[in-house]
Amino acid sequence: MIIRKDDKRLQDILKRGEIMEGEYLHTVLDIIADVRTRGDESLAELTLRFDGYDMLKGGIEISKREMKDAWEALDDRLKLALENAKANVISFHEKQLENTWIYEKTPGTFLGQKVTALESVGVYVPGGKAVYPSSVLMNVLPAKVAGVEEIVMVTPATGGKVNPVVLAAAYLAGVDRGFRIGGAQAIAALAYGTASVPRVNKIVGPGNIYVALAKKMVFGQVDIDMIAGPSEILIVADSSADPDHVAADMLSQAEHDELASAIVVTDDLELAKEIESSVYAQLEELPKREIAKKSIEKYGAIIVTDDLNEAADITNNIAVEHLELCVANPMEYMLKIRNAGAIFLGANSPEPVGDYYAGPNHVLPTGGTAKFFSPLGTYDFQKKSSIIYYSREQLIADMPDIRVLAESEELIAHRNSVIIRTED
Amino acid sequence: MIIRKDDKRLQDILKRGEIMEGEYLHTVLDIIADVRTRGDESLAELTLRFDGYDMLKGGIEISKREMKDAWEALDDRLKLALENAKANVISFHEKQLENTWIYEKTPGTFLGQKVTALESVGVYVPGGKAVYPSSVLMNVLPAKVAGVEEIVMVTPATGGKVNPVVLAAAYLAGVDRGFRIGGAQAIAALAYGTASVPRVNKIVGPGNIYVALAKKMVFGQVDIDMIAGPSEILIVADSSADPDHVAADMLSQAEHDELASAIVVTDDLELAKEIESSVYAQLEELPKREIAKKSIEKYGAIIVTDDLNEAADITNNIAVEHLELCVANPMEYMLKIRNAGAIFLGANSPEPVGDYYAGPNHVLPTGGTAKFFSPLGTYDFQKKSSIIYYSREQLIADMPDIRVLAESEELIAHRNSVIIRTED
Repeated sequence: MIIRKDDKRLQDILKRGEIMEGEYLHTVLDIIADVRTRGDESLAELTLRFDGYDMLKGGIEISKREMKDAWEALDDRLKLALENAKANVISFHEKQLENTWIYEKTPGTFLGQKVTALESVGVYVPGGKAVYPSSVLMNVLPAKVAGVEEIVMVTPATGGKVNPVVLAAAYLAGVDRGFRIGGAQAIAALAYGTASVPRVNKIVGPGNIYVALAKKMVFGQVDIDMIAGPSEILIVADSSADPDHVAADMLSQAEHDELASAIVVTDDLELAKEIESSVYAQLEELPKREIAKKSIEKYGAIIVTDDLNEAADITNNIAVEHLELCVANPMEYMLKIRNAGAIFLGANSPEPVGDYYAGPNHVLPTGGTAKFFSPLGTYDFQKKSSIIYYSREQLIADMPDIRVLAESEELIAHRNSVIIRTED
Repeated sequence: MIIRKDDKRLQDILKRGEIMEGEYLHTVLDIIADVRTRGDESLAELTLRFDGYDMLKGGIEISKREMKDAWEALDDRLKLALENAKANVISFHEKQLENTWIYEKTPGTFLGQKVTALESVGVYVPGGKAVYPSSVLMNVLPAKVAGVEEIVMVTPATGGKVNPVVLAAAYLAGVDRGFRIGGAQAIAALAYGTASVPRVNKIVGPGNIYVALAKKMVFGQVDIDMIAGPSEILIVADSSADPDHVAADMLSQAEHDELASAIVVTDDLELAKEIESSVYAQLEELPKREIAKKSIEKYGAIIVTDDLNEAADITNNIAVEHLELCVANPMEYMLKIRNAGAIFLGANSPEPVGDYYAGPNHVLPTGGTAKFFSPLGTYDFQKKSSIIYYSREQLIADMPDIRVLAESEELIAHRNSVIIRTED
């Protein structure tokens, strides 16, 4: 597991999420076109085929009652933990809220930016076993904080059943409407609307390759969030780090998924060896040791560098989803970090604190996209309009420049609309 | 041209930008795959085929010298106008700059958001006749304000020639590198990099259907801005509006392009009639009357409503790119507006003021996408990382909740990484 920074293995790890989209594209385009044309009829056929669920019998919509019942059936201790997590997530995301501003540029001239919430949002929640109530909170609550009026959840009712913890989390988060649909067909329904499913302004939430591609293909018709790849952690550790802690954090990533990746970057070879032993020792005790072992063997690595500056360069180049800085002076070290989804500082901030609880969003850019994407946030559910208010005096003052510019682009009607107001 | 709000014609206008992507998709995917595999060799072949330019002879890169020479050859009066426009655009976009923040959530626990600039950005500038230096400023300057280190411009050298005003504007805006490439092949080169063209983090700028589709298909590999459709204006006018002014503003939109749309919404039928006459009278004097006439006849409309509240509803539903509020009390009326790219307030703020000069960006959401997209802004070139710093005391305090949540998701290694730190 211990490698040098120029080991070819690192490239294999970083490329693990690359998907050949071509082979899925036709299927996805056909599904989108069919749902767009035939609406609910198409949805019913596709849902029966892919999820084994007959919505003509069982119904497409999930009632508020079902969500409420699921919440009430939940264990009280879990309810309390989810309520506390919700309060933390709301509190952090309220700090991200943007407000309208206007300023006076010159006497009588105002410029600004009006901020409004999106009206409606669709949240995709995957089916299958690995379904996380925390994901429902993390996708829904920022929209709620932004002031979105209608939040629509879609989730496949594989074999007719929706995970009750998802329903409970949807109730707690305040989902307005829910539908038993999934896959590319659910994305198409949210993008174009059907008789049953309302069209929304933006679609967020992770999904399989069909869902990811469908989101990409409806972009422009609606807005979408980023494209999610397999999850990953990178831990920068110096000699102050506890090898057992670092090993535990690697495993917390590895247990997610065989494609998950856990990388340590350290300037301390002895520490590297201790971490490696600890990983294998702790691994044996895990219920998900099969998954975690495959992930560690294939996509785990401990990179030994000359110093911590080199470690920062590697970290910025990888641009990881979750970054832990297990170093003596994490606040100062953070100044060297440019690219990461979330940064966990110091010995007492393990990544699961952010997954569940602290408040910042756990929907984060993966696969190097932290070079240009941001965590999901309240800002994803607000939009802006520019504001321009000119006085007649200012229009007269600026007219000569605007005239020259319009004439240089040969747009005479543009020029006229200014001149007609200043020559009266 | 005068219609009621339920006229079928309105639907035709709003759907004018819809494009059947399917037929272009294969070509675009083939081009992307080829550039990704063969790099410069592919670029050279495609550029010769589509732009009639042999880059093996003429060179692919535009030198800084060429940009500087183009700037210096510009007329002094135009130089001054462009410099003033640049200063205004920078001044407005500086107000959009976001900064890193951290707050103390509980004693010893800090949460926050680190804001950093993207490292590199690609700007697509279309070829052809309708090339606007103002577009170069509007796409490049926000990236500059954000602190992007490398701004790469690509533009097709149709027949070997790049528009000198584009080069001059690139020089003024501070483009770092320029390349004589266009179409889907230029987008692929920016997304994946070739021996000559650097890979960037985000691609912005308008283009034809091949460029738009290529941007969509490389989304995820890089970030992109919105998908640009044909331009449009909507003017809400009450009896206080000057019909000649409103007519001039409709024409300033119509002269852009036969697909451009100019809509007036008014509660005053007499005003509607006066605007209509004035449009036809002013039209005759325009150099671009052929284009403007087609646009007005096909996609121009004056909608007469019962009152101004109804006008606001229609406006929000259309979610137009440029919205002028030519009403007696525009500041107050703006409170009713939810969806618009840019809002021009009152009698002295015609749309060309924003196109060229005032400061806010002229790259705006079109075709109803103002329901979810924002104007291009400094925020497009900054990204965020979450910051989480826990004290040991806080970790101990939150451990019971985190434990319950991790166990409910059957993620035992997640639980362990918290417990191992609190049980020592």
